[in-house]
Amino acid sequence: MAWTRDDFTYLTPIPTRWNDNDMLGHVNNVIYYSYFEAVVVRFLMEKCGVDWGEDRYIPYAAENLCRYKKPVAFPEELVGAMRIDKIGNTSFTYDLALFSQKWEEPAAEGHWVHVFVDRETERPVPIPENIRSQLTEFQK
Amino acid sequence: MAWTRDDFTYLTPIPTRWNDNDMLGHVNNVIYYSYFEAVVVRFLMEKCGVDWGEDRYIPYAAENLCRYKKPVAFPEELVGAMRIDKIGNTSFTYDLALFSQKWEEPAAEGHWVHVFVDRETERPVPIPENIRSQLTEFQK
Amino acid sequence: MAWTRDDFTYLTPIPTRWNDNDMLGHVNNVIYYSYFEAVVVRFLMEKCGVDWGEDRYIPYAAENLCRYKKPVAFPEELVGAMRIDKIGNTSFTYDLALFSQKWEEPAAEGHWVHVFVDRETERPVPIPENIRSQLTEFQK
Amino acid sequence: MAWTRDDFTYLTPIPTRWNDNDMLGHVNNVIYYSYFEAVVVRFLMEKCGVDWGEDRYIPYAAENLCRYKKPVAFPEELVGAMRIDKIGNTSFTYDLALFSQKWEEPAAEGHWVHVFVDRETERPVPIPENIRSQLTEFQK
Repeated sequence: MAWTRDDFTYLTPIPTRWNDNDMLGHVNNVIYYSYFEAVVVRFLMEKCGVDWGEDRYIPYAAENLCRYKKPVAFPEELVGAMRIDKIGNTSFTYDLALFSQKWEEPAAEGHWVHVFVDRETERPVPIPENIRSQLTEFQK
Repeated sequence: MAWTRDDFTYLTPIPTRWNDNDMLGHVNNVIYYSYFEAVVVRFLMEKCGVDWGEDRYIPYAAENLCRYKKPVAFPEELVGAMRIDKIGNTSFTYDLALFSQKWEEPAAEGHWVHVFVDRETERPVPIPENIRSQLTEFQK
Repeated sequence: MAWTRDDFTYLTPIPTRWNDNDMLGHVNNVIYYSYFEAVVVRFLMEKCGVDWGEDRYIPYAAENLCRYKKPVAFPEELVGAMRIDKIGNTSFTYDLALFSQKWEEPAAEGHWVHVFVDRETERPVPIPENIRSQLTEFQK
Repeated sequence: MAWTRDDFTYLTPIPTRWNDNDMLGHVNNVIYYSYFEAVVVRFLMEKCGVDWGEDRYIPYAAENLCRYKKPVAFPEELVGAMRIDKIGNTSFTYDLALFSQKWEEPAAEGHWVHVFVDRETERPVPIPENIRSQLTEFQK
């Protein structure tokens, strides 16, 4: 059964740009990952207080995936949707979806795995406690 | 066991660009998909004769995934590696890897699913026969 | 004397994305042109009814320039500002500026020249009359 | 009179990527600046030994401009061409051109101004002497 917006705990608007569209007149699939990135980065800054310039322990992308359901195109205003799925010791997973105003079901869905690393050693470290507690708030 | 270059049937150089790097001094994860795209698009044009401007049946991205193993950075010269995995009726899957000159195992690995569609209706169609036979050549 | 927002006739919000920032932690200079493009494309669609997929006569970029005054960075919310400068027979010029919420004067300023062409021949054509009259409305 | 390759002192190949093309089937004008950036960054690293991660004095873009003469498109292999024009106290200017294999004259031409700054204060500083002497080698 397809996801709807109600299945998610964090939503944020995603404006498109003209050069997001490719030769076929749709948003290029690579760009979907920059939309997903916008969602997870905004969440981490707003809700978890992550500061990439200063924090010693920062999240690195370990894996992501996208399934393209229906094409979207500039100048559409999209909505990025997110919920936290699994939370492990050093890493955690977001479920992600991208909604157009044209359909109730997602135009695209996917996931993203972030692993916390020490910025000096680039080795995995446990998810900091204050962030872990925020993550649990956004599970569903 | 990790993939090596010998596990792939099609390799192509991937030069990096300065603004591929993000704030953390590594190639941004979104950009990996434009590297993967460079591999599959080059393969489709060179080996399968696909012409996106003219062909009636063209491949659309249906799904892709990337696992980030080790960070890469501009000005590295990378190698994109590909082999065809499953071939279905309307869609097929590539295995993909990105190699740095620094390590034998991939810096990143992933897959990409292309589905053939009619450019007018955007509905799936069987993989054209001449392309299917080329795809089988690049399985391993 | 530096431009302020009052010198412009069309303003539009420009949200930044995480991967707009480069290795030095600022928005990469290439990206400023995608911000300028967002301004002129939005103006052309909203105010002049340009439809790139359908119109016979469409604007091509002939020249653009940007002067970088002060660095900006994700997650700033910027404002793109525009006014029409010269209007010729086949081409016209926009003055452009990018404002941060941090300073009254622009973070960047520049211009953009669009020339109307026939999409088949790619040869210059006179600016369509309905568009010319809209352009004059946004001069200052 | 139009520039040719012989008017330049530094040339470097510029491979195009599929998603460099926009909806009109040509390389999007924003992308030309990433090509120009590839030329000047490669020159600074190769010939002037600039290290953006470590050097105290680094070049910031102060201004750039591009004139679009003829459209180019993926999968063309382009050539970026550069020569040093004016060298001032803290800043200097590159002349730039982009050549397609289809025409002798440039597909695009432009310039780029770099100003050296102290990375801590972001204030202009004199061009380091070793770099200044390299720059003069590439004037014409």
